[in-house]
Amino acid sequence: MAGNTFGQLFRITTFGESHGVAIGVVLDGCPAQLPIDLEFIQSELDKRKPGQSKITTQRKESDTVQILSGTFEGKSTGTPIAMLIPNEDQRSKDYSHNTDVYRPSHADYTYDAKYGIRDHRGGGRSSARETAARVAAGAIAKLLLKHHGIEIFAHVSAVGQIQAPNLAHDDVDTLLAIREENIVRCADPATAHQMIEFIDGVRKDGDTVGGKVSCIVKNCPVGLGDPVFDKLHADLGKAMLSINAVHGFEYGSGFSGSEMRGSEHNDIFLANGDQPKTLTNFSGGIQGGISNGMEINFTVAFKPVATIMHNQQTINAAGEAAEIKGKGRHDPCVVPRAVVIVEAMAALVLADHLLRNRTSRL
Amino acid sequence: MAGNTFGQLFRITTFGESHGVAIGVVLDGCPAQLPIDLEFIQSELDKRKPGQSKITTQRKESDTVQILSGTFEGKSTGTPIAMLIPNEDQRSKDYSHNTDVYRPSHADYTYDAKYGIRDHRGGGRSSARETAARVAAGAIAKLLLKHHGIEIFAHVSAVGQIQAPNLAHDDVDTLLAIREENIVRCADPATAHQMIEFIDGVRKDGDTVGGKVSCIVKNCPVGLGDPVFDKLHADLGKAMLSINAVHGFEYGSGFSGSEMRGSEHNDIFLANGDQPKTLTNFSGGIQGGISNGMEINFTVAFKPVATIMHNQQTINAAGEAAEIKGKGRHDPCVVPRAVVIVEAMAALVLADHLLRNRTSRL
Amino acid sequence: MAGNTFGQLFRITTFGESHGVAIGVVLDGCPAQLPIDLEFIQSELDKRKPGQSKITTQRKESDTVQILSGTFEGKSTGTPIAMLIPNEDQRSKDYSHNTDVYRPSHADYTYDAKYGIRDHRGGGRSSARETAARVAAGAIAKLLLKHHGIEIFAHVSAVGQIQAPNLAHDDVDTLLAIREENIVRCADPATAHQMIEFIDGVRKDGDTVGGKVSCIVKNCPVGLGDPVFDKLHADLGKAMLSINAVHGFEYGSGFSGSEMRGSEHNDIFLANGDQPKTLTNFSGGIQGGISNGMEINFTVAFKPVATIMHNQQTINAAGEAAEIKGKGRHDPCVVPRAVVIVEAMAALVLADHLLRNRTSRL
Amino acid sequence: MAGNTFGQLFRITTFGESHGVAIGVVLDGCPAQLPIDLEFIQSELDKRKPGQSKITTQRKESDTVQILSGTFEGKSTGTPIAMLIPNEDQRSKDYSHNTDVYRPSHADYTYDAKYGIRDHRGGGRSSARETAARVAAGAIAKLLLKHHGIEIFAHVSAVGQIQAPNLAHDDVDTLLAIREENIVRCADPATAHQMIEFIDGVRKDGDTVGGKVSCIVKNCPVGLGDPVFDKLHADLGKAMLSINAVHGFEYGSGFSGSEMRGSEHNDIFLANGDQPKTLTNFSGGIQGGISNGMEINFTVAFKPVATIMHNQQTINAAGEAAEIKGKGRHDPCVVPRAVVIVEAMAALVLADHLLRNRTSRL
Repeated sequence: MAGNTFGQLFRITTFGESHGVAIGVVLDGCPAQLPIDLEFIQSELDKRKPGQSKITTQRKESDTVQILSGTFEGKSTGTPIAMLIPNEDQRSKDYSHNTDVYRPSHADYTYDAKYGIRDHRGGGRSSARETAARVAAGAIAKLLLKHHGIEIFAHVSAVGQIQAPNLAHDDVDTLLAIREENIVRCADPATAHQMIEFIDGVRKDGDTVGGKVSCIVKNCPVGLGDPVFDKLHADLGKAMLSINAVHGFEYGSGFSGSEMRGSEHNDIFLANGDQPKTLTNFSGGIQGGISNGMEINFTVAFKPVATIMHNQQTINAAGEAAEIKGKGRHDPCVVPRAVVIVEAMAALVLADHLLRNRTSRL
Repeated sequence: MAGNTFGQLFRITTFGESHGVAIGVVLDGCPAQLPIDLEFIQSELDKRKPGQSKITTQRKESDTVQILSGTFEGKSTGTPIAMLIPNEDQRSKDYSHNTDVYRPSHADYTYDAKYGIRDHRGGGRSSARETAARVAAGAIAKLLLKHHGIEIFAHVSAVGQIQAPNLAHDDVDTLLAIREENIVRCADPATAHQMIEFIDGVRKDGDTVGGKVSCIVKNCPVGLGDPVFDKLHADLGKAMLSINAVHGFEYGSGFSGSEMRGSEHNDIFLANGDQPKTLTNFSGGIQGGISNGMEINFTVAFKPVATIMHNQQTINAAGEAAEIKGKGRHDPCVVPRAVVIVEAMAALVLADHLLRNRTSRL
Repeated sequence: MAGNTFGQLFRITTFGESHGVAIGVVLDGCPAQLPIDLEFIQSELDKRKPGQSKITTQRKESDTVQILSGTFEGKSTGTPIAMLIPNEDQRSKDYSHNTDVYRPSHADYTYDAKYGIRDHRGGGRSSARETAARVAAGAIAKLLLKHHGIEIFAHVSAVGQIQAPNLAHDDVDTLLAIREENIVRCADPATAHQMIEFIDGVRKDGDTVGGKVSCIVKNCPVGLGDPVFDKLHADLGKAMLSINAVHGFEYGSGFSGSEMRGSEHNDIFLANGDQPKTLTNFSGGIQGGISNGMEINFTVAFKPVATIMHNQQTINAAGEAAEIKGKGRHDPCVVPRAVVIVEAMAALVLADHLLRNRTSRL
Repeated sequence: MAGNTFGQLFRITTFGESHGVAIGVVLDGCPAQLPIDLEFIQSELDKRKPGQSKITTQRKESDTVQILSGTFEGKSTGTPIAMLIPNEDQRSKDYSHNTDVYRPSHADYTYDAKYGIRDHRGGGRSSARETAARVAAGAIAKLLLKHHGIEIFAHVSAVGQIQAPNLAHDDVDTLLAIREENIVRCADPATAHQMIEFIDGVRKDGDTVGGKVSCIVKNCPVGLGDPVFDKLHADLGKAMLSINAVHGFEYGSGFSGSEMRGSEHNDIFLANGDQPKTLTNFSGGIQGGISNGMEINFTVAFKPVATIMHNQQTINAAGEAAEIKGKGRHDPCVVPRAVVIVEAMAALVLADHLLRNRTSRL
């Protein structure tokens, strides 16, 4: 059924295939009068686009976004904001050799099995290209959050077994500046250097490697998130798990919390004027599914990209053994480009709950 | 806003507070003509109810479920199935000393901050008691899945740092029998013994400890899950993260997948009649968000229960320093009772996608 | 699929069959801190209950409502408010002769055809008894609207060909007092007298007759309703058409507007301080789907009740000719009891849009 | 909040303003493998486009539709189908004199009041131009229905007080041929002639007039529609009331049914093989909210278009008295162009319920 919509009140619907005419998004529910900064939206897309550096795919797309509706004289009008990103580099022939063959750990087989028909060019709808539409909408969500003082920052916290240390700065602008100085988008320069070397080696092997993206949210007001099913971290988790290649999500103490005792895990409240703080933050800024005003933090695990430059055994649509050749262009590690996708999805969840929270009281 | 509903086509809405009249659930969208086995529903609730053993809370509730509507002569009629579980053991006075004090790492403060009013008795709506309603509805989801040959099995795979080995059996009935032979609900008897000893020690310390529940789905048909936002694992992730105390979710290779290379992670397809298999299953039975017919597997991390029998520093609603006494009854480790909740939520997601998939083709 | 839920932010889910254990409703999304007046809810139900007068069915039900959750010390807490109305007068044997026979212009045949199973007792889920649950939830919607100064008033404006004149008063309390003085619930005493005589005659014939209910909304703030699909009048229309036996809906100029010219139909704006008025109100208080601050008005057409005391030719489930006897108790005219249902559904729509409108601007 | 989406399983989201870059629609949930006939979609749009004849607006738009996604080699793939209709005739200066003035019975004032900002050019989002997007999506719905043998036919049944007789043919192709032979789109040639004469006179007066569109659905399978809130006629009613200028909806016996007695209104079942018929069809093909296999019929009342060529008194955004001049181009009567919009919305409702009904049974 219809599954291309995300969000309740700040709601996006994306469309488009990798090698079709265009991809795009309709954002419905953006409050009126928000200044819409097209340059900012484009700059976000530029962080996701292919061909940025030697450690991302060499596929070239300018990913130029156009706003079709919903703004007037630079502001949102409360009507749906449609954005279009034309597809440029439609080298379908790169993919023609895969028409009939199921690439391992791709969605080729499952799409065919589900729908009985599939746009096989470049993964069609299952391509990570779809996330460009999310980034465009997420950029507007960020503008709304910024208007309310809320900041989001993500970076690459691990590549393979190389793990970054905890963030050394508290200021998002500083963190952003450090992160954007290196092509792997890690906020620790020394670790970034290691990661880049490592990815470059993996690339030369024609192989790929997984990694992690960690994200924080600063100045989140108390009260976002709805109890029971739509807990803030549950919606964040779904958002992250809906990103291509994500295999895990944890927030606050996460998986390591499962090894702790209550007496060490409990975050003790400290009196602090109108808004209490907690001594520790194993809760990750969320208690009972509702933001408590502390920094929200979570980590997302990405598996290695399935497209590798090796020949692989597989089967074709007829169920016969086949071989797939390692051709085309590929991303040796997806996380540098995924950082802005993680931020975009987090922004969409927070914008939605920001609006939802307006109806919690009389 | 309204956040107490889960699912699209097989949809539940839960209601009720820990110490109110009753908790309950309305299940809308259950297909007509499904035999509704009340004894089975009750037996599922019995696995979640408090007071089962020395390692769970001593709070006593029979958790007797009553069906109010939606069935006729033992079968579903296609109309909403409402189920009620009266609250019995409403020792509100146990909680009267906490009226005004915010328990650390509970939802007391965030509920108050969000709503400005809160039923403080036993956690009110934020109590894990709400999950009984999910288990009742999840039992019906299991009946629907069983009708289609789909089986779900979860067990306690870790308590603190005690980790169970991989499942030694492939048959769900066997696994269930082994699991139910021990009070911690681990499918490995030797590990179970260790876990029970450990939890009992934690209990005697007046402390609590976290753990993990792992779950598999067998015989899931190919094609469940919708691409993009409503990927099968994204909906499973949200379902799990909506359970009280859950801090992490991973499926297939999970977090360890982030350390792997594509050449080792890719699941090679093997010709296998009508429905291919894969040599490995790092994809966890889901590719591109859609089930591929292999076993689905995922793991859920639970933080330690926040209610401990120690005195703790905190603040009250006026923002002043206060102390909270360790009184009442508590669960030293929540995972033995959470196993059936994990299964219930998984069943609800799968039942929903089973119905959703009926509209994917002409 | 799941179709027993109404509303987006102020959302109800109803359940229960006519002759089952109980009917009920879960209201999710009611803002916290609203005083919940149980006596008022009961008084609304009393206006819908059967057995009120000689011109309604003699079936006896006290329709006593119980709140199960969502309130604390007399106020809403922001959590789901579940309400239960036990079924008392379950004379199933009255209906046993109809087990297998399709009553003309009832839902017997269509339910059987759709679901292949049906609780035939008293219409089961298709019984108008379900509307009691709506009235209970609608009463809470009215309390929310009243808090914001919004008033709703409906009355019987036609029975058969007897049509009431325009409302002679502007004050809702006065109108209510007049309406409740007669058993047909028409705000014009002289017309009410005629209607009662007429219905009584129809009743003695063992027959039934249709009628109309007209409704006004006073002090509706400007800005409720969402453009395009969720226009305020579109949601009101759906709400009304979802009430049993409704065959038509019109607002403002309604059907007669289709015969008018633009030059007479246009409502000319008059300067009026902060909030303009219009000289006429053919728009019925709604322009472009959004309330304009003028009185909202609409009319709902009810067909005659299908249960009559005559013998009728029909068929049975096997498709064979059969006769249905005119037994049991029946409502000669449904509109006197429908007045409060119309108000309830209008209140639910307005409460929903009141909350929705909180997110239209920054 | 987000209100630009219609449908549950066959779901559209429209976007775009009258004088922006383009309008468009994303259709999500269309089953895979449906042949998508672009020429048919365009032919439907041609029936709605302005400038068709002397009795419609002289505004010129080719309304050329482009499919951006969701199809492959001429068939739907199960992914979102996005369609774009660029705006061509953006004579914004026609509207520049209205920037600050509220046109009577338009949405100018209510949009400004709700959002505090408004694209005033040509009505912006409140323009009936938005319905072109619905027609494009409705055309695909028709293709799906046709695949299942379901046919929809609407025509102009009244203009002002000129009322068409009942349909003289039973065959939809014949009816369509007759209807398309006259510019007013009435299936009765003699009445059509009268209507055209009348509208032409109204046009010369610089005035407008209302009318009615009646619609039938043939070969609708038994069982579409969900009980309680999502009754088939309730969803049809909402769909129709969401069309610009609609002020009333009735189905089956409609408003006249409110004057009838049960003994004359009841539709007596006749044995008829597997699927019974009814002797009369006052139920309009729907009983208890569910289709019964008989012809579905309903009528929609349109008010006269608010844009007239007369000078009118009004106010401006500052609340001061102002005059509005009758300039620009206008539609003297909207119903000839609305016929295909009514059909499109009916098709969308039926397609949605066709898919929904796939989950009603095991």
